[in-house]
Amino acid sequence: MTTQHGSEMAATGEPNRFAPIIRFDADAPLPLDCGAELAPWDIAYQTYGTLNQDKSNAVLVCHALTGDQYVANRHPVTGRDGWWTTIVGPGRPVDTDRYFVICANVLGGCIGSSGPTSINPATGAPYGLDFPVITIRDMVRAQARLVDHLGIDQLFCVIGGSMGGMQVLQWAASYPERVFSAVPIATAARHSAQNIAFHEVGRQAIMADPNWHGGGYFTAGAVPEKGLAVARMAAHITYLSEPALHSKFGRNLQDRDRLGFGFDADFQVESYLRHQGSTFVDRFDANSYLYLTRAMDYFDLAAEYDGVLAEAFRDIRTRFCVVSFTSDWLFPTVESRQIVQALNAAAANVSFVEIESDKGHDAFLLDEPEFFQTLTGFLNAAAEKRGLTSDAAREDV
Amino acid sequence: MTTQHGSEMAATGEPNRFAPIIRFDADAPLPLDCGAELAPWDIAYQTYGTLNQDKSNAVLVCHALTGDQYVANRHPVTGRDGWWTTIVGPGRPVDTDRYFVICANVLGGCIGSSGPTSINPATGAPYGLDFPVITIRDMVRAQARLVDHLGIDQLFCVIGGSMGGMQVLQWAASYPERVFSAVPIATAARHSAQNIAFHEVGRQAIMADPNWHGGGYFTAGAVPEKGLAVARMAAHITYLSEPALHSKFGRNLQDRDRLGFGFDADFQVESYLRHQGSTFVDRFDANSYLYLTRAMDYFDLAAEYDGVLAEAFRDIRTRFCVVSFTSDWLFPTVESRQIVQALNAAAANVSFVEIESDKGHDAFLLDEPEFFQTLTGFLNAAAEKRGLTSDAAREDV
Repeated sequence: MTTQHGSEMAATGEPNRFAPIIRFDADAPLPLDCGAELAPWDIAYQTYGTLNQDKSNAVLVCHALTGDQYVANRHPVTGRDGWWTTIVGPGRPVDTDRYFVICANVLGGCIGSSGPTSINPATGAPYGLDFPVITIRDMVRAQARLVDHLGIDQLFCVIGGSMGGMQVLQWAASYPERVFSAVPIATAARHSAQNIAFHEVGRQAIMADPNWHGGGYFTAGAVPEKGLAVARMAAHITYLSEPALHSKFGRNLQDRDRLGFGFDADFQVESYLRHQGSTFVDRFDANSYLYLTRAMDYFDLAAEYDGVLAEAFRDIRTRFCVVSFTSDWLFPTVESRQIVQALNAAAANVSFVEIESDKGHDAFLLDEPEFFQTLTGFLNAAAEKRGLTSDAAREDV
Repeated sequence: MTTQHGSEMAATGEPNRFAPIIRFDADAPLPLDCGAELAPWDIAYQTYGTLNQDKSNAVLVCHALTGDQYVANRHPVTGRDGWWTTIVGPGRPVDTDRYFVICANVLGGCIGSSGPTSINPATGAPYGLDFPVITIRDMVRAQARLVDHLGIDQLFCVIGGSMGGMQVLQWAASYPERVFSAVPIATAARHSAQNIAFHEVGRQAIMADPNWHGGGYFTAGAVPEKGLAVARMAAHITYLSEPALHSKFGRNLQDRDRLGFGFDADFQVESYLRHQGSTFVDRFDANSYLYLTRAMDYFDLAAEYDGVLAEAFRDIRTRFCVVSFTSDWLFPTVESRQIVQALNAAAANVSFVEIESDKGHDAFLLDEPEFFQTLTGFLNAAAEKRGLTSDAAREDV
């Protein structure tokens, strides 16, 4: 399938484990917020379900920092199930029997879309730090081109958590007519000083690793695994809550019945974190981690509108469902309230639900029945408004 | 001055910029919780004020993780003022015109007391990771030997915040008769899973630095500065609060008026953190950081008493003042409440004050008038009970 300027790379005969991938060539560059243009550029994606005749049932899922396009199917690197099978699938809140679900690897990522691991046409080697610094708006601009390519004018819904939620907000601001409904989850309209600080620690950990080689580790034949693992460990703490850590691990010892008086992992929580760090490096690129954290740090939606967030949503007809979780201290409820206040100030159609959970920021990825019910209810009502009511849906409502 | 087994190293003719240092030789080993004995061993300390005739006015200040004995005078490495001049000094809550204040560098530290930078008599080289893993109780045992050496039976007060507060609690549990009053501040009776997790990230950052050389960097002629800086940066975030970071830095840019689209420190908060990391390595030893964080992780006072914290304080006559700060998320008020509940269950004499502050954990080091008033009030009342009432004190009350 080709439309306009994009073409499936598989059609060119290149094998790629992250296919399908759409390539946009030199005649279709991607303009970026930094002022540069990217060409050629790729976007890798997965779809689930069937696009209906009038192309009105498409749901775009936006993934978080370390997520990817494998929302609801097996990941080709890890062999694990999709990262959001709780939400996306047959009979799930985002019901693939009903909706056509699209998820693309973000620009700057490392799972098939253009990013620092891509080949720089100017050198024939991976970009590394020569890849332009990208923004959430750039990611969304790239996704819009994919949606064009798929021949879809308006998305029924754009949904995502954390960095994915930032993309949802940017979609609504940049392309309000193309977003019938929007679900920003566990997110913020701008990245806080504390979150920038945590990201900076992760970046410094990567850049402190001598195997990073100023970002040129591909050509140096090394990988900054230790630095990336430390970055992941630091970040992972922020995804959980103190109560979750306490109930999951407490001060329990790992494979021993007394303190070891050494620097091995005495405590289960240490062992768990080390595991999180060491498995992450197998599936993620260190430079991508720099770029994507930077894009989040740079996100400040109101800044595009002279600091007035409500202006981002002026005259918008999109239906919003804003979701936060009580124990999320990375993107606390107060951040969601600011989004809701701006939407209210813009007279937008918005519902807001704070879900009681002790699972921290990661709650949006986990088993949270109240969250599932919220999504199902919102999407069913929106589908009815959009004229998507199917027999299956009528049974639901 | 020498008593029993300790002797001032200055008397042996060895110059040391951290003097005074008491050396305990092979005839006075320090037994450790790990089962080993340390000999010889040193403890470096500072004193302020004058010990009264009956030696009843001594206050022991216990320092936090990255603190040292320079409470209220110039630090010989950094040239900066003492770390607690808000609290300790003439006319301050811990009034050096009235009390004889002692502060020792903790065991495992790097400012003159025995630690991994000390010479291992078995090899003639610095211990590195051959230094035994020590505990908060070991630190307190060493301090008790110093207090013996100074000829003091009972301390009028033992006071400290964070890791210092852990030592205060351990002092009261191990030597209740020697502690007339105790002020544990911004601390906990056991280190939480989340706090262990943050420490583990810091340790992994240090150990990931190839200059660490398995702890043997002294002989390798290298210093794991980058790893230690990352550890400090991660920890530093936990010492502040999100509101403090927001009001101090927000999303303000550093030395620029627009985003740099790169990985330099665009934001002030990044620049601040980098500065915290880079200055820390000039005054602190990476292995000491491993040992002291480990000691904190291992702290679980109730574990010595079959898990019943109140048993640690059975029949205690010490007067307690427990202090927490509202925005401290590293040692939140709930941790102090658990200490207070245990003290109440032991029918101990305890007052508890939660100070309203947006400064996070670091509040105990900063300008907090309500905190100062709390300490002054508690210490004045305790001094009166102890018969320390001076003319100056009478004017105060």
